[in-house]
Amino acid sequence: MLIDRLHTEWEVGFHEKEDLSPTAWHPARVPGAVQLDMLHTLDDPDWTRGDGFRQFRWMEDVWWTYRTRFDRPLIKAGEKLCFRSRGIDYAFTIFLNGREVHRQEGMFRYVDLDLTDLPEDENELQIVISPVPKSNHDAEDRNQANHSFKPAVSYGWDWHPRLVPSGIWDETALEIRRDLLRETTVTYLLEESMDSVSVNVEGVMDPMIRSLAIRVEFEGETLQSDEFEYRENKARQGEFRKSLVLENVKLWWPAGLGKPNLYSITVSAYDDEGQLLDEKLFTIGFRKVKLVRNKGTEKEDDSFPKSRLLPPITLEINHRRVFAQGTNWVNPEVFPGRLDDERYSELLELAAGAGFNILRVWGGGIVNKQYFHDWCDRNGMMVWQEFPLACNDYPDDESYLSVLRSEAYAIIERLKHHPSLVIWSGGNELYNSWSGMDDQSLPIRWLNSLCLELSPDIPFIPTSPLQGMGHGHYLFHDPRTNEDICQIMARSEHTALTEYGVPSPSDTLILRKIIPEGELFPPTNASKAWKVHHGFDSWQEDTWLCIGTIEKYFGKQESLEELVKNGQKLQAAGYRFIYEAARQKWPRCSMAINWCFNEPWPCAANNSIIQYPSLPKPAYHAIREACRPVLASASFPKYMWQEGETFRFDVYLLNHTNEDLLQGKMIIYINGREAGHWEFAKVEAHTSLKGPGIEEQAGEALEISLRVEGHPEWDSIYELPVTKNPI
Amino acid sequence: MLIDRLHTEWEVGFHEKEDLSPTAWHPARVPGAVQLDMLHTLDDPDWTRGDGFRQFRWMEDVWWTYRTRFDRPLIKAGEKLCFRSRGIDYAFTIFLNGREVHRQEGMFRYVDLDLTDLPEDENELQIVISPVPKSNHDAEDRNQANHSFKPAVSYGWDWHPRLVPSGIWDETALEIRRDLLRETTVTYLLEESMDSVSVNVEGVMDPMIRSLAIRVEFEGETLQSDEFEYRENKARQGEFRKSLVLENVKLWWPAGLGKPNLYSITVSAYDDEGQLLDEKLFTIGFRKVKLVRNKGTEKEDDSFPKSRLLPPITLEINHRRVFAQGTNWVNPEVFPGRLDDERYSELLELAAGAGFNILRVWGGGIVNKQYFHDWCDRNGMMVWQEFPLACNDYPDDESYLSVLRSEAYAIIERLKHHPSLVIWSGGNELYNSWSGMDDQSLPIRWLNSLCLELSPDIPFIPTSPLQGMGHGHYLFHDPRTNEDICQIMARSEHTALTEYGVPSPSDTLILRKIIPEGELFPPTNASKAWKVHHGFDSWQEDTWLCIGTIEKYFGKQESLEELVKNGQKLQAAGYRFIYEAARQKWPRCSMAINWCFNEPWPCAANNSIIQYPSLPKPAYHAIREACRPVLASASFPKYMWQEGETFRFDVYLLNHTNEDLLQGKMIIYINGREAGHWEFAKVEAHTSLKGPGIEEQAGEALEISLRVEGHPEWDSIYELPVTKNPI
Repeated sequence: MLIDRLHTEWEVGFHEKEDLSPTAWHPARVPGAVQLDMLHTLDDPDWTRGDGFRQFRWMEDVWWTYRTRFDRPLIKAGEKLCFRSRGIDYAFTIFLNGREVHRQEGMFRYVDLDLTDLPEDENELQIVISPVPKSNHDAEDRNQANHSFKPAVSYGWDWHPRLVPSGIWDETALEIRRDLLRETTVTYLLEESMDSVSVNVEGVMDPMIRSLAIRVEFEGETLQSDEFEYRENKARQGEFRKSLVLENVKLWWPAGLGKPNLYSITVSAYDDEGQLLDEKLFTIGFRKVKLVRNKGTEKEDDSFPKSRLLPPITLEINHRRVFAQGTNWVNPEVFPGRLDDERYSELLELAAGAGFNILRVWGGGIVNKQYFHDWCDRNGMMVWQEFPLACNDYPDDESYLSVLRSEAYAIIERLKHHPSLVIWSGGNELYNSWSGMDDQSLPIRWLNSLCLELSPDIPFIPTSPLQGMGHGHYLFHDPRTNEDICQIMARSEHTALTEYGVPSPSDTLILRKIIPEGELFPPTNASKAWKVHHGFDSWQEDTWLCIGTIEKYFGKQESLEELVKNGQKLQAAGYRFIYEAARQKWPRCSMAINWCFNEPWPCAANNSIIQYPSLPKPAYHAIREACRPVLASASFPKYMWQEGETFRFDVYLLNHTNEDLLQGKMIIYINGREAGHWEFAKVEAHTSLKGPGIEEQAGEALEISLRVEGHPEWDSIYELPVTKNPI
Repeated sequence: MLIDRLHTEWEVGFHEKEDLSPTAWHPARVPGAVQLDMLHTLDDPDWTRGDGFRQFRWMEDVWWTYRTRFDRPLIKAGEKLCFRSRGIDYAFTIFLNGREVHRQEGMFRYVDLDLTDLPEDENELQIVISPVPKSNHDAEDRNQANHSFKPAVSYGWDWHPRLVPSGIWDETALEIRRDLLRETTVTYLLEESMDSVSVNVEGVMDPMIRSLAIRVEFEGETLQSDEFEYRENKARQGEFRKSLVLENVKLWWPAGLGKPNLYSITVSAYDDEGQLLDEKLFTIGFRKVKLVRNKGTEKEDDSFPKSRLLPPITLEINHRRVFAQGTNWVNPEVFPGRLDDERYSELLELAAGAGFNILRVWGGGIVNKQYFHDWCDRNGMMVWQEFPLACNDYPDDESYLSVLRSEAYAIIERLKHHPSLVIWSGGNELYNSWSGMDDQSLPIRWLNSLCLELSPDIPFIPTSPLQGMGHGHYLFHDPRTNEDICQIMARSEHTALTEYGVPSPSDTLILRKIIPEGELFPPTNASKAWKVHHGFDSWQEDTWLCIGTIEKYFGKQESLEELVKNGQKLQAAGYRFIYEAARQKWPRCSMAINWCFNEPWPCAANNSIIQYPSLPKPAYHAIREACRPVLASASFPKYMWQEGETFRFDVYLLNHTNEDLLQGKMIIYINGREAGHWEFAKVEAHTSLKGPGIEEQAGEALEISLRVEGHPEWDSIYELPVTKNPI
């Protein structure tokens, strides 16, 4: 129980060697980042403009010391003075009055130091942070992160500048606490029938405690309340364990499948006069989660030899198969110290607004702060949590493994009770050639093992993609294979699409802020600003602007406005095709999770659908259309058609609700003219029903409109380009 | 240190209920099986004839009690009276003078009870064994074993009768021991350079011990000898830990790659008068083992989306990639209690004689006795050890998992120090539709986790096959697809062939023993004896006799002798094609492990190459040819040809030795006439070199002979059938 939080002022400074002290101290914001505290020293504090981020480069390789001074506070019996931090990035040593009290490598485990026995009246706490970890100096890229548990993204990615933050990045304070209910946990066992649950409350209590009260509340109403008295003369170790059974429980459901019902359980401790001594609050959602085999992949081919079946990648929540439609969540800020409740909130609201029910927290980034997970619990947003390993070959070295085990242990213990957590994953793209890990890699085996030991009820996958799953493509049109996104989706037999992207330029308003006026149009790879903001040479030479693709469909672009408009239009169309195609292939395909949702800084062009900081692109709205619970949908074998060519497509009704749709009629229009109709039978809950194929000569334009009688909210309209030239 | 083994006479009897006693006692052989002790009560003690094995059926469902009586022996200071057993099958309770002293489920963990404080002068030890575990009574098949850690094979397989053994199956005795060096282990760390090794000897010693000697020997010569004295006045916990470094170590190599060098380390403990108090002997082979990605599978296809790469399945021993050529080892006896050193020895000598370097100890069977592993250590025979899980959906239930963890822990601790152990595998075909498990299954996750914790230096795979690997085909010719073994191998792109079979009938001598004279010829599925001995309806209706296939190539069979001869000829040819084809595909294909080596009882027909008990089939000799370290080899696109058809094949030189082959010349003869030659360049060590393709019109016969000048030991001859009729 928090009694008081001491007001502290922090300062920070750097030094070239570990055992030196800063020559100058600067006021420090906590949480934050050393880089942000040094902004006032930069030539251009607007570091997002041009290549301004390079001003931070030297800060990677020095030591940083934070300090704060405080007087000995009044500490009553049963109280403790603690230094608590939820995150210090990355390797650090803590000194109290010059004496080392803690040393840690890893930014995710909480620091919790008992400083009650203070030696002095006036005290100084110092935190000395080592230079950014780098396994090598061959190149300034993600490989430098391959021996540490620090997110690789900051070392530079095709949509993230090379800018590696350091410093105190999460809630940190000196606190006076009463911690008389220690190691208290609440666990539960849901009966197979799913309507009854046994809840276990256990912990260790201080001898001062004379009675305990356990209260269960649901939607503000107390369901159950039990009190337990402890007589003085009773010998005991202080351990307590109470069980209670709740009947007719309301389960936690992901968005779209039901309400994300949450119960709160309060454990209160009193002394013999009935005074409250300590209290712990737990928020719990009861649910079962499994990964089960995708339908259509449960049998082998007829012929021999046999290999193994594809790994399961369909989420089953409370025994119900769920189509996971969502997005890849990346760090919303280059400096995670800037992430506060408001920042999380505005982005998460947007994700929910798109109709998403899952976020893949991509392994290149951080493990999020508590607010993120609480929000997802409250809003039925499923979380696929990756450990911070990405696109690297993390070693079997014991020195790396010991950090990995400590950090992973803390992460698992912190997140495992969140009902929104549905998948643990070792990290991103670890089993691909550009990473080089495989099932024999000890880091993955350890993560699997720790998750099993601490969190056996939540599925673990070693990485994404696994066999059958797909990452990519990341382009609307691949000039190397001359395939467009419709063609790629037509041949896709993937069990889950867990990354795929369609890029677009950012709004002109953003471009004008980050790119010098003279370089704005036409964009070329001679412009440093376009390049460092990922317009050119980011992944391939033409990414992420992809002017060639925009001009392929829209001809030569005459202005920045035109380029942005058409680029964003392609992105919107492309993303819509993919989400709908994945839903059409349900239940064989069980997931549609695009690359990516947001971005950590203003990009000139990117696959994101939300521009930094929180501005939706047109694609966002197109995806929201594609993610409606019920919709009429079409699949096109390709995007662009030649006038006079035989044009064909199939129609579908996609029903991802819990309710069956009654029989009805869909009318299919081409360029405003009825081209066919479909008298569909009942569409069962969570079903994608395929309708007739439509075939006719392509005219001068192709506007396809699907209208369902009596359900205008299910209607869909598509526009495809037509050319007079041979394709 | 064993001081004395008490002579004990055992008796056994059955009872219908747990708390009853046997009404009759029979002399019992220990180790053995209750069924064997009851042989004299059967109508026909030759239970391998006809369906005689069914006489044992009732024994599955009763309780069995073993008893032995013994007088209190003389036990000196520092000595203990122990009851030790290496295996009691399956769930049992041990009583001493009517008092329960131990209860266990699981036949693989050793029992070690300290009975030193005997209450009586005359004592009786009783072991009460529960009925055979069965999870259900739906059908009498392997599914009944899916909730226990008992090998599934005894519940009936397509080459194993339904006959489930019970009883004491491994070495068991009352012993007087001096156990003053407790928990002593030897571990080692091989330097990356592979020529220096640090050896750690640690344990706990009794206070009686005054000095320790550690002696390292190699090939009978003492390399190092250290003595350590312990003064009385020195306070200590009894824990000791000694390190020693060996330079220029000779590594343990699998057969064909070098010598399986073994070191022995003896730890001796003495009292203050220099009397030997206790002694432990460790045999160690120094080696590193890894599973690495197969060559040719390290990159993705060019196109998107990307999936994961295939899992690694190439063994790398001491940094050298090894082609694993071997066989699937199954229980050599229906009753594992009959397995003694001699029985192991004769079979293992045959395996080595075939040129094999690996045995896959198939998960349907037992974990072998110590002699097996010691032999493999001494002879460079690699062991792929599966846990006893096979073709079932083992549950996530905590009751099953707790037995699995205890048994697996014991198995890992017992085997992990054997240098011959190169792969841990969760079990057989667990990720296929007929089993139903997958990466989310907790039994597999626990096995992976336990192996990681206890034996991190040895690769773990969840099951076989994994993606890219192949199990099957099990026929020379598949009538359903009309493919023969050459055609299947021609299209195989598998990374490892870890099961494949070609059946044949057994020798007529064996057939005459197990099948009544009147049913011998022609074999039909109306004969119970042919059926229960796996001639018909075993897997498919025509297996394993496959008369249709034999007649396809050899016409109507007129006698049992002819049928056996031709069936065995096909098997020999088929196996030879497969082993050679897999070697030709090296290094993309890294393993050729046929199904199967041996058999547990006399089969009428089977894929085995050694007939029960230890009689090689002609296929054994053909495989030995195909497994020569160096050979000229050919690959044929199909087996049977039509006269006049264009006949073509490719030739190879296969070099699986450590030495490069010098350049030379291979001459290719068809029907004794030179059809081409190949002036080959140097063939590097561990390389399969492809030579020219040969093409000509098929004549009346096809005898292909490959002769390498100066190396008749590399020559190969093949015979293919030619028909005048259209195929």
